[in-house]
Amino acid sequence: MSKILVTGGTGFIGSHTVVELHNAGYTPVLIDNLSNSNIKILDQIEKIIGVKPEFHQFDLCDTAKVNEFVASNPDIKGIIHFAASKAVGESVQDPLKYYHNNFYSLINLLQAYRQKPINFVFSSSCTVYGEPDVLPVNEAAPVKRATSPYGNTKQIAEEILQESASAYDNYQVIALRYFNPVGAHETALIGELPIGVPQNLLPFITQTAIGKREKLTVFGDDYETPDGSAVRDYIHVVDLAKAHVAAIKLLEKGNPNGNYDVFNVGTGNGYSVLEAIGAFEKASGQKLNYVIGPRREGDIIKVWGDVTKSTNELGWKAELGIEEMMASAWAWEKYLSENPIS
Amino acid sequence: MSKILVTGGTGFIGSHTVVELHNAGYTPVLIDNLSNSNIKILDQIEKIIGVKPEFHQFDLCDTAKVNEFVASNPDIKGIIHFAASKAVGESVQDPLKYYHNNFYSLINLLQAYRQKPINFVFSSSCTVYGEPDVLPVNEAAPVKRATSPYGNTKQIAEEILQESASAYDNYQVIALRYFNPVGAHETALIGELPIGVPQNLLPFITQTAIGKREKLTVFGDDYETPDGSAVRDYIHVVDLAKAHVAAIKLLEKGNPNGNYDVFNVGTGNGYSVLEAIGAFEKASGQKLNYVIGPRREGDIIKVWGDVTKSTNELGWKAELGIEEMMASAWAWEKYLSENPIS
Repeated sequence: MSKILVTGGTGFIGSHTVVELHNAGYTPVLIDNLSNSNIKILDQIEKIIGVKPEFHQFDLCDTAKVNEFVASNPDIKGIIHFAASKAVGESVQDPLKYYHNNFYSLINLLQAYRQKPINFVFSSSCTVYGEPDVLPVNEAAPVKRATSPYGNTKQIAEEILQESASAYDNYQVIALRYFNPVGAHETALIGELPIGVPQNLLPFITQTAIGKREKLTVFGDDYETPDGSAVRDYIHVVDLAKAHVAAIKLLEKGNPNGNYDVFNVGTGNGYSVLEAIGAFEKASGQKLNYVIGPRREGDIIKVWGDVTKSTNELGWKAELGIEEMMASAWAWEKYLSENPIS
Repeated sequence: MSKILVTGGTGFIGSHTVVELHNAGYTPVLIDNLSNSNIKILDQIEKIIGVKPEFHQFDLCDTAKVNEFVASNPDIKGIIHFAASKAVGESVQDPLKYYHNNFYSLINLLQAYRQKPINFVFSSSCTVYGEPDVLPVNEAAPVKRATSPYGNTKQIAEEILQESASAYDNYQVIALRYFNPVGAHETALIGELPIGVPQNLLPFITQTAIGKREKLTVFGDDYETPDGSAVRDYIHVVDLAKAHVAAIKLLEKGNPNGNYDVFNVGTGNGYSVLEAIGAFEKASGQKLNYVIGPRREGDIIKVWGDVTKSTNELGWKAELGIEEMMASAWAWEKYLSENPIS
């Protein structure tokens, strides 16, 4: 029962990964400062896996606390590092928060493990591709200058990890470039828990359907896409969680590609915003109140991933489709309306 | 007598800037952790300006210490931020040292001043241009992907500063992109004080001439340049120091270009390594023992700056030429051989 540290373990992707690590025979150990997640998620995880995971509440930007944790937990074999600020718009308004949180947490962790062999899986993002020149975009595509401080922290984190894996011999790193994580656990006991107005499409859809929001605005229907709305590669959060387990397993047996590697984590299929709304209406049986608004500055027009490398070299492939994504997200929203977590 | 904080104030460029700030009527306040400089430089500065500058020894990566300093020094009107790790080669060997030191010091300072109006002058570098497509290179040239962690920290620091100046209203920022700083103060009381084997050409030249090093290796004489050796824009450190005073003055009166601006700081003239050696031999009367070696991976072939914007908008122009650079560097090396500082 190898111990895997999951930073940001009570967050959206973190909590689902904790469940999948447990299911795969690992012992997840969670760190979270609860700045953007809720302590009650630990109880929800317990309802799914039958045990309450080990949890430590502190801020990874606190160098002394990180060093203390690492010194007193010598049996951690791997790290899945989710903890980060993640709202693109907020990052433009408050860039120092993003550079501080996202850099200090990563660098503190790496420095604390400087003298120990460690497997490290990093939450990266398809934002590193910007607006890709070729679709589907594969891992060899050029990384483009980020258009937000958030995106910049992901790009630079990849560089820090790549350069560290090359300079030192103790780090084995995989960066997973997520496309658009959506959906919820099949039990509807955990899911996305946005604080305030949701920044992402799916929670906005489900909150509108349940009546928490009056209407959804679709930002732009005059893009050069089949129906004019922006196109994304939505990935079910449970599939995404399993990709992290696959990454840990690959690092444990030794990645033939070397000490640093990146993988796309998507389904390989693009759906437009309007298609996603249609899929939600079909899966939920709800008619969604939405309006078309102007384009939103900085939005990527279309992006979906080439998952050939993930399939062949990570040994992972998405199993759940758009129907399961929408149905599970809706089940979670309904669960939340009856069992509020706040 | 406005107080200006000079981080890295006992370093090469820092110490010369302390002198020029004093000469211009400012009161410099120094912070340095002495990791790459010597406390005795304070005495040397005192010999030049007649007073020992206020000095605080601590590491700017220590968030609590930075906050304490800022809280107890409310009369600081501007910051010139030199403190950083700066050796390209070392940064490839030990990237985490660079990301840690250079990011934490900058972000700690910015966060500590988050609620106060502050003028901020940043030490950037012509490394952000990489191998320029057009020479002389001006400030509008594209920033290229850095080839070392050191260069990356300079690029990203510029981005952090630009985004912060845009997001918040309390920062007035100028980034100075230095070309190749050389030379020493005309009194020969301060100058470059490399620890260990010099990473830069000039101290290697002067240490070879004085007999500390057996010979100098010129890395490559088969580049596409007039004499085959690499070409640089050498800038006298006293001129460079004065550019920082000019930047502080421009920020004090309000920069019409806005809250964030960048300026090249060079002479606008390129000299090859072999020309620099010739100029040294002429200025010093010493014959230099040098050999031609192979190209060094990652070296830029040729770069010199367009200084039109600095001349017109910063109101600063280099006054000292290659002769003064070489003569002053040699005088400093001779002073050091009779008055070792270690």
